[in-house]
Amino acid sequence: MLHKRVIRSLHRIVGRRNVLTAPADLLLYSYDSSTERGRPDAVVLPSSTEEVAGVVQVCGKHGLPFIARGAGTNLSGGSVAPHGGVVVQLSRMNEVLEIDLPNQRAHVQAGVVNLDLQEMLAPHGFQFCPDPASQKVSTIGGNVAENAGGPHCLKYGVTTNHVLALTVVLPSGEVRHFGVPVVGQPGYDLVGIFTGSEGTFGIATEMTLRIVPLPEGVQTVLAIFDHLDTAGEAVSQIIAAGMLPAALEIMDRTTIETVEASFPTGLPTDVEALLLIEVDGVNEGLARQVDRCAEICRKLKARQVETGRTPEERDRLWHARRSAFGASARLNPGILVNDATVPRTRIAEALRQMQEIERRHDIRIAKLYHAGDGNLHSNILFDPASPGERARAQAASADIFRVAAEAGGTITGEHGVGTEKIKYMGLIYSQADIEAQRALSLVFDPERLANPGKVLPAPETAG
Amino acid sequence: MLHKRVIRSLHRIVGRRNVLTAPADLLLYSYDSSTERGRPDAVVLPSSTEEVAGVVQVCGKHGLPFIARGAGTNLSGGSVAPHGGVVVQLSRMNEVLEIDLPNQRAHVQAGVVNLDLQEMLAPHGFQFCPDPASQKVSTIGGNVAENAGGPHCLKYGVTTNHVLALTVVLPSGEVRHFGVPVVGQPGYDLVGIFTGSEGTFGIATEMTLRIVPLPEGVQTVLAIFDHLDTAGEAVSQIIAAGMLPAALEIMDRTTIETVEASFPTGLPTDVEALLLIEVDGVNEGLARQVDRCAEICRKLKARQVETGRTPEERDRLWHARRSAFGASARLNPGILVNDATVPRTRIAEALRQMQEIERRHDIRIAKLYHAGDGNLHSNILFDPASPGERARAQAASADIFRVAAEAGGTITGEHGVGTEKIKYMGLIYSQADIEAQRALSLVFDPERLANPGKVLPAPETAG
Repeated sequence: MLHKRVIRSLHRIVGRRNVLTAPADLLLYSYDSSTERGRPDAVVLPSSTEEVAGVVQVCGKHGLPFIARGAGTNLSGGSVAPHGGVVVQLSRMNEVLEIDLPNQRAHVQAGVVNLDLQEMLAPHGFQFCPDPASQKVSTIGGNVAENAGGPHCLKYGVTTNHVLALTVVLPSGEVRHFGVPVVGQPGYDLVGIFTGSEGTFGIATEMTLRIVPLPEGVQTVLAIFDHLDTAGEAVSQIIAAGMLPAALEIMDRTTIETVEASFPTGLPTDVEALLLIEVDGVNEGLARQVDRCAEICRKLKARQVETGRTPEERDRLWHARRSAFGASARLNPGILVNDATVPRTRIAEALRQMQEIERRHDIRIAKLYHAGDGNLHSNILFDPASPGERARAQAASADIFRVAAEAGGTITGEHGVGTEKIKYMGLIYSQADIEAQRALSLVFDPERLANPGKVLPAPETAG
Repeated sequence: MLHKRVIRSLHRIVGRRNVLTAPADLLLYSYDSSTERGRPDAVVLPSSTEEVAGVVQVCGKHGLPFIARGAGTNLSGGSVAPHGGVVVQLSRMNEVLEIDLPNQRAHVQAGVVNLDLQEMLAPHGFQFCPDPASQKVSTIGGNVAENAGGPHCLKYGVTTNHVLALTVVLPSGEVRHFGVPVVGQPGYDLVGIFTGSEGTFGIATEMTLRIVPLPEGVQTVLAIFDHLDTAGEAVSQIIAAGMLPAALEIMDRTTIETVEASFPTGLPTDVEALLLIEVDGVNEGLARQVDRCAEICRKLKARQVETGRTPEERDRLWHARRSAFGASARLNPGILVNDATVPRTRIAEALRQMQEIERRHDIRIAKLYHAGDGNLHSNILFDPASPGERARAQAASADIFRVAAEAGGTITGEHGVGTEKIKYMGLIYSQADIEAQRALSLVFDPERLANPGKVLPAPETAG
């Protein structure tokens, strides 16, 4: 419980109605889309950078943690409050301040929803490249904090490749401007280091984003394979042929079954893999690329190959992929999402090891992976009401992280570390490498009030 | 002069013949491709990360600055030694350790020459995207230190977008591994903050780079305009049409005259602008894009429009652009290169102000600019032997930086800050923003021995 004096201070900054302290409200903000939990002491809804700075100053004065929050779609515990404190809910700061087409940039507040921005840009023929699966609700501020990816990041890169400048409230409560709104910031890349820092360096309240023309045309291929291995081989052959599709996504049998059980689309459920290939660019080149991809799939004995050339056909082919997470959530009370990533050539081996992991822990894993990037993106399904099942899911997840690390991969392709993966950081980095990261974080947040308990393990106690 | 004990220590690490201390040798290392100067006390040529670490440890023990150096093509004084110390010349570490095509990455030592890597990749149909004009001699280590760009970075992004992982010798002499060799490093983006830090955070000795398939086809358009403004308008219309060429380069009349005087190619010298447009991608789409670009140029009354469809034709069209810097250097004893950058829509205005600057300082400026990025890239020509001319060139350069800053641009699109632009950092950042950068640099280099005197102005003395 916060002291009344603190609450009064917050009231003065954002107004009484924009400070939530009722237990029912706080419970809502104890969750995000991960399985991690942590209840804040208060939630504030600021409307401006100045209000955010005021709130952060109050937190600093009273030694309270502050946790920036967008839509709470975080998949690694980045938005929960394990040490209590004040959640700074940025959804009121949802204004697109400027769209500057000739200079290909957009200036937005942190609470703007990704898809809202895309829908403002599309009529002008432009897009903001990062397209996380959560884009219908997730905010640009959250995308920046998590350095969000998405199916099309194979070709277009992740969020950090598309941020030019940031307005940041530092943990000291000071407002700083990082970067410049053109290509080429002089000096150190503060924008780059802030992007993906999961709210632990301060709160970005405004951002200048690079926007680019929409591709002239987009076509999709859907191929269904009896064996997961051959779907993986198709991905390798497409890449080896020198093509760079905008997306290369694989769904496994468990995922297909889950989708068909929820939103039947007539997919066969006796197959091991569905491969989605999306090709974009100038219109003239698309047909040959699509034909070439389809031919590779057919030669590898795909049971069925379909191509989508119109928006309606493409929507139909993407339907299963887009429904997958929702269907999984509908049928399975608990999902632990794992985005361990391996070098592309190690995918087949990693998949075999994952089958072994499923058996060992007697648990089902629905794979939904970004094959182009080697991101295994697996949904570990469990029933929290069934004794021991959550623990088995967590043990399976730990094993997948180990498999990825041993294959020269990483514990997070795009979802961040949050609270969930802290204990696996040691699989990737030596203690010395982790301390190098900590030293950097202390420059921004010497008092450890910015989203504490995330990203890095606690320092080893001396002696 | 270094103490004999220091020299003996260096001998023990890299061998006697790999330590240079003769005045003539040191003079050679007092220069880079900028007009800045600074003589080191010794030059060492290490052959391994361990040797680099040993050298850095010796420097730390004796409080000596160390300056990593590749090919010395730096254009802002990044490779000179204004405070003396030891130049760590990395040209012996020039091994390509691994090319991993299926995983689209290359692992190289810092001294590998950019073009050598490209020539190893090309037969396999791959490239490393950054293509600085210096690529025939500049090294990957230098490209990383400077976050190098190049004509094709408009479409493909600068160096930081293509580095996955680094092996780094910290100023403490410790060896650290930053990043992971797949998409998605967990935790803070140490690779990103190190890239572009101009050697002031330590020495990167090995790097894992992202490589991508070469575009299937490339075609070039050359258009000659009577007026610089219309060439700029053509660039705007091409971008507005939703095209993203791989390069959009403009040469002004002074540059054309310089080229024709050195390497005559038959270009008219009574015109104000030559625009080069390069389009790449799948073959089928190229012709229409080229036609569209050519049509835009013709409608804007380009005096001449040529298209290059074969490698030979393209080479011919690029010849003038590629010869421009060499021709300038041949005809002008002194060149001050300025890469101030403005938002694309402010180019026409900036060009008008630059004409005024030429008149005001009675100096010639050859413009050679990356029009797509708004990078004004101007070569300020002067004769160092002529009294006052260098000072006038520097005054003109300062004025260009002011014009860029006032237009919402930046003082360096791709050449870095080095020693040359330190005094202009205040045009872009507040003192507080600069101090935020300094705090970050002190994490890596608390003793200020890593390439000191670069990037940031000295701290303001108290009182």
